[in-house]
Formats: sequence, structure tokens, C-alpha cells
Amino acid sequence: MSLHFEIHAICPTTGARAGMLHTAHGSIPTPVFMPVGTQATVKALTPRDLAVELDAKIILANTYHLFLRPGHERIERMGGLHKFMSWPRAILTDSGGFQVFSLDTLRKVTEEGVLFRSHLNGDAHFFTPESTVDVQISFGSDILMALDECLSYPATHDAALESMQRTIRWARAAYAHYLKREKGLDCALFPIVQGSMFADLRRACAEELMTLDAPGYAIGGLSVGEPRDLSQEMAAVTAPLLPPQKPRYVMGVGMPEELPEYVAHGVDMMDCVLPSRNARNGYLFTSQGKVVIKQAQYMDDQRPVDPNCTCYTCRTFTRAYLRHLFQAGEILFSMLATLHNIHYYLDIMTRMRHAILLGNFPEFLRSMRSVALRSSE
Amino acid sequence: MSLHFEIHAICPTTGARAGMLHTAHGSIPTPVFMPVGTQATVKALTPRDLAVELDAKIILANTYHLFLRPGHERIERMGGLHKFMSWPRAILTDSGGFQVFSLDTLRKVTEEGVLFRSHLNGDAHFFTPESTVDVQISFGSDILMALDECLSYPATHDAALESMQRTIRWARAAYAHYLKREKGLDCALFPIVQGSMFADLRRACAEELMTLDAPGYAIGGLSVGEPRDLSQEMAAVTAPLLPPQKPRYVMGVGMPEELPEYVAHGVDMMDCVLPSRNARNGYLFTSQGKVVIKQAQYMDDQRPVDPNCTCYTCRTFTRAYLRHLFQAGEILFSMLATLHNIHYYLDIMTRMRHAILLGNFPEFLRSMRSVALRSSE
Repeated sequence: MSLHFEIHAICPTTGARAGMLHTAHGSIPTPVFMPVGTQATVKALTPRDLAVELDAKIILANTYHLFLRPGHERIERMGGLHKFMSWPRAILTDSGGFQVFSLDTLRKVTEEGVLFRSHLNGDAHFFTPESTVDVQISFGSDILMALDECLSYPATHDAALESMQRTIRWARAAYAHYLKREKGLDCALFPIVQGSMFADLRRACAEELMTLDAPGYAIGGLSVGEPRDLSQEMAAVTAPLLPPQKPRYVMGVGMPEELPEYVAHGVDMMDCVLPSRNARNGYLFTSQGKVVIKQAQYMDDQRPVDPNCTCYTCRTFTRAYLRHLFQAGEILFSMLATLHNIHYYLDIMTRMRHAILLGNFPEFLRSMRSVALRSSE
Repeated sequence: MSLHFEIHAICPTTGARAGMLHTAHGSIPTPVFMPVGTQATVKALTPRDLAVELDAKIILANTYHLFLRPGHERIERMGGLHKFMSWPRAILTDSGGFQVFSLDTLRKVTEEGVLFRSHLNGDAHFFTPESTVDVQISFGSDILMALDECLSYPATHDAALESMQRTIRWARAAYAHYLKREKGLDCALFPIVQGSMFADLRRACAEELMTLDAPGYAIGGLSVGEPRDLSQEMAAVTAPLLPPQKPRYVMGVGMPEELPEYVAHGVDMMDCVLPSRNARNGYLFTSQGKVVIKQAQYMDDQRPVDPNCTCYTCRTFTRAYLRHLFQAGEILFSMLATLHNIHYYLDIMTRMRHAILLGNFPEFLRSMRSVALRSSE
């Protein structure tokens, strides 16, 4: 296990943390947003764009998707995921649990694991806590996630309790297996706190998982259809229970204006498909609110998407041109829009980190909230 | 008119020419292949890729498509096509004739021009020799093409004669209009030799158009469904009739192995959608023949697409990874494949030019023919 986390500053008002996460594939300033590279590519970006233009330090890849195609054994033969996709920096892989529980309708959960069918060809597969560790070790991931059961919203307290307890048992099994296999490897396994939207279950789950003394902890089971303030509430309840010296990762969030809220709860890591998916659909995030590029108002607009942005897209192209590309269905639109949206997210993270280090995070949080208010008017 | 063409060397055996075409947006070593940017973007490439990674000096854009969307008046308001698409180097635009005659079924040709319906929304539009010059001047194109009638294959001698004569009358009208408008502008108009697959008509058309003393000439009406050796034959018949001191452009060709054949006929400029379209469909050109990336043989292939290629794609990624991206339908595949295929075309052009300058073009031609033979086995 080579993961090492340093905390450089903590906001005394909110508890927001600025730190540095050291991995075998580079050091990652936190708080960090991880662009999502589902199928071993962050859609519409080259790894060069990601590293040189965006300076992303870590990306997320999906165990479920890569297990099915091209297969973990193939990726291992190709020298691991970093080499396969030519990404020399850090990679976190999820456990596959989220996809199994959200994509597949034909699944069966047992104490041993979960039986599911491939969304590609219907083939049956069985994930166990141990097997998903093995798959992620085949990838050569820097950070592995323990198999969890991810409930949809809403769930009853009984169902959430049963599922949370199973997630704990799976996390123990995954962690024991990881400890057997991790010697000589540079990887860390994070268990995932579940408990649906019940604070008591979140607390109980966090307490149990802390006995594992894992190198980091995630809060999962959010962004499953619940109202956004409920996701925030669950993160707010759970994060302070996690070991203060270890990185805390909230999975699958959020909108740009939510990023500072999570950080204010003491969260260090986040990931989300929103910036890239919205980009491809023509929704661009800017410091002045959302730009829906298909709107006729942008037809003759010679301004960059965001006049305050320094990304290649904003340095080079007008809204009028981007609108033309979008209307014409051109691939270049997806490329330029993705670059911009991810830049926007990463820039928020960088500015937040500076604010925490400089001791003015509360002011930063207030200014982000007022922008969010203005742009939602 | 700022176009100036210098010839630096002529192959004494074949007549292949190495030269330099000077435009207001840079100098272009010839023979040159022009990547096609139909809708003001070479699909799946940024202008930075085109300039920095590929060092393309000139691209082609389509008058028909840009006239319909976003409209030439909008492009003019945005500062012209170079600024609109952030491409500071040279642009050639076609006349729109090819698309009107190939895409649209509802069209009516009169002496004055051609009535056609938009493929986007069915709106009726009328192109005249004069209006297409005006449209291209609105774009700010460096090289404009005269409106021509482009027959499909096969055509009768009578139909081809009538059409060719109309093309000549249109070229005269376009040229007269261009002469009235070009003062103070940096653009050149090329007439297009038509005549279907009839050598006598091609000859007659070339002779008539030469009286215009235009700054360059194109050979059009090829790649319309005829056998490839017939396209070659028409280029071979026509090119030597064109003014030797002016650039000669064969429109819409060709396969990589055909490029040297056209150059051997004394052709200086070519364009084709093949490298980019084939790229998106998974057909990659290499020095060792075609790679159809979806084939199972590439699943575990750790070699670059073309071991002899120096492009970003080949420097960075394996065939196995590219196959994975293609199978997964990822945008990055189109990006990397397009970059490679266009690099392959431009590299052939560069090597041809060097061969002509060094006096060993016949050897180059022989070696390309033997590669083509091997890869077609």
C-alpha cells in the first residue's frame, strides 16, 4: 500500500480540508474532482488533453464496464490500465457495484456476492467482494473500491439496514482479501459507507467500517434519485464520522455549485459524469451560469463560452462557432465542450484548495452560493 | 489576387511537380493533400491538431453546407471563415456544385444557375455562377471554385457535351464576376474542367477555360462512381493540357496508393473525405496495408497502428486499445483514427515532394505501387 495522505490546512469554520494524496502514479492535491473515464477513456478527450491542457491528476474508470469489455485479463496482459489507455497518472476504479445495481435488471444478490447479466450480450457473471478486488488489481488501479450494495431511492429502513449490513460484511471480506494480495503492489482499498438516506444507518456503517483501518473511505449510495439536499445531508452526517487523517470520497457527485458544499462537509474527493455528459448534450457550465448552446441567442455571439475561463475552448472559439458545431452534430463540439466543462470543474477545485490554504474558504463558499443563486434565477 | 505559384522541380520521367503555392494565409508546399472540413471543421480534429500535430497548410470547406448552415452572411459577420473556425492557414472552398448535384434530388438546372432544395429543411435556394463567388468571398476563402455542373456516371456523350458547355459558360460568368469583385481581396478563382469520361470533351473544356487565364485550374467530375482507372485516365488526359505554370487540382481523390499516380500526371492539389471518413469507420491506412480495426486479430495486438508512423496515435496507443475504443463506440476512436489517417496522407505528400526535389520520384512511385500490390493481396 503506497497511498499516503497529508493534510495541509483545515478551514476552522467549516472543516474543509486541503491536502495532498500521494500515489504510485503521482501526487494529487485535494480536494480533487476526478473526471470519469468509464471505458478507459474520458469521453472525447485524449490523455494528452487531460494531462497537458487540464492537468488532471487522477481519473476514475469503471470496473463493471472494463470487466465486460475489453476484460480485465486482457487489460492485465496489455500491462495494466495505465499502459492500456496511456494514462501515466493515478486511476481510481469503482467496485462495479453501482453499475450492477443501476444498469442491470436481471440480478440476484446472495451472501457471497451478486449475479448479474451483461448489458452488452446478456452473459451471466458473478461478482464477489474478493473477485472485484482481483479484477481491480488486474487493472493496476491505484485506488480500489470494495464491492458494495447500492440501493435505489427510496428504500425502507429495513431494506436499507439489511443492505448496509451486507455491504459491511462484503467490505470485510474484500479488505481481508486485499490484505492478502496487496503486498508488493501499490494500491489502496477504500470501503464504502452505505445506509440509504438514514442517518442512523450511515453512522452505524461508518463506525463498523472504521474498524478495518482502511487507507481511505467513501460515501456511496448518493445520486440515486434522492433530492439534492438529502445527498448533502447524508454527506454532512457521515463525513465527520470518518477517520480525520484519511481521505474521504463522496461518489458520483455533483453539480458545480455542490462541490464547495461537499468540501465544506470535509470531503476530499469527488467524481461525476455530469461535466462530460452535459458537455456532449450542449450544457456548458460557466462562471456566469449555464449556457445551453443550442439556444438561438448564441447564433451570433462572438464571446467565448466563459469570458473568465482560460481553457483551449474559451481561448480559441466563440459561442457562435460552438453552437454551429452542436447544431451540425460535429464531434468537435463534444471535444471542445468536454474540455471546457471539465476545466470548469477542476478550476473550482483548485480555487477551493487555495481558499482553504489561505484561510478564506468561508468567503469562497459564500461567493459560490451567490453565483448559484443568480444563475438559478 | 494574391495567389502565386512557384515550381521548384519537375520529374523529367513523369512530369510530377514540386512547388510552393503562396496565399495570404501562408505558403503551401505542393503536391498537397487538403483535409476536408465540410462544416467548418475537419471532423474529430481541433484546428490545433491540424496545425501543430499534422502541419496541414490548407483545408477544404464546403460552400453548399456552410451556405445552408450557419449561412455565409453569419460567417461574414463573424469575421470570415478563418476566424469563425479559428484556422489561420489557407482555405479552399468548393463551389457547391458537387453537393447540389450529388445530395439533392429536387433540383432544376437552367442557363442562369441551379435551383435546389436544402437537405436540412427542404428550403429552395438558387445558386448562380455569380452568387457562389459572392458566397465564397463572404467566407473569405483563399481559393474559390467556379460553379460547375457535375454529372454522375455514366453519362452519354450528348449529355456530357451539353453539361460541359454550360460549365464553360458558368465559368466565364463566374470569372467575370470574380474579376469585378476581387480587387483588394486576397483570393483566387479556379475554373473546373468537366466532360464526364470523354477525353475529347475534357480536352475541349480545358482549351476553352484556358482563355480565362485563371490563377489555377481544377479537374472535376471524378469520383462520381466510375472505375478508378477511368478517373486516372481522365486526369492523365486533362492535366497536361492545363497551363504548366499554374496549380492543377484534381477534386475528390483518392485512395493513398492513387495519390502518387495523380502526382505523376502533373497534379499539384487533391482533396478527399476518404482518410477521415474511413477513419471513423475503423479503416486505418498504414505503410503495411489497411488495418480494419474491428477484426479480432487486433484484440491483443500491442503494436501501434503503423510501426513506421510518427503521429500522436501511433506514438501513444496500441491496436488493442484502438480496437477497444472502436468496439465501445468511443469518440476518442474517431479522434485518434482521423489524426492517424490524415497524417498518413500528408506524410505521403511530403515524401513525394522530397522525392521529386531529389530526383527520385520514379523510384518512389514504383515502391508505392509495390506496397499497393502487396496490401491488396
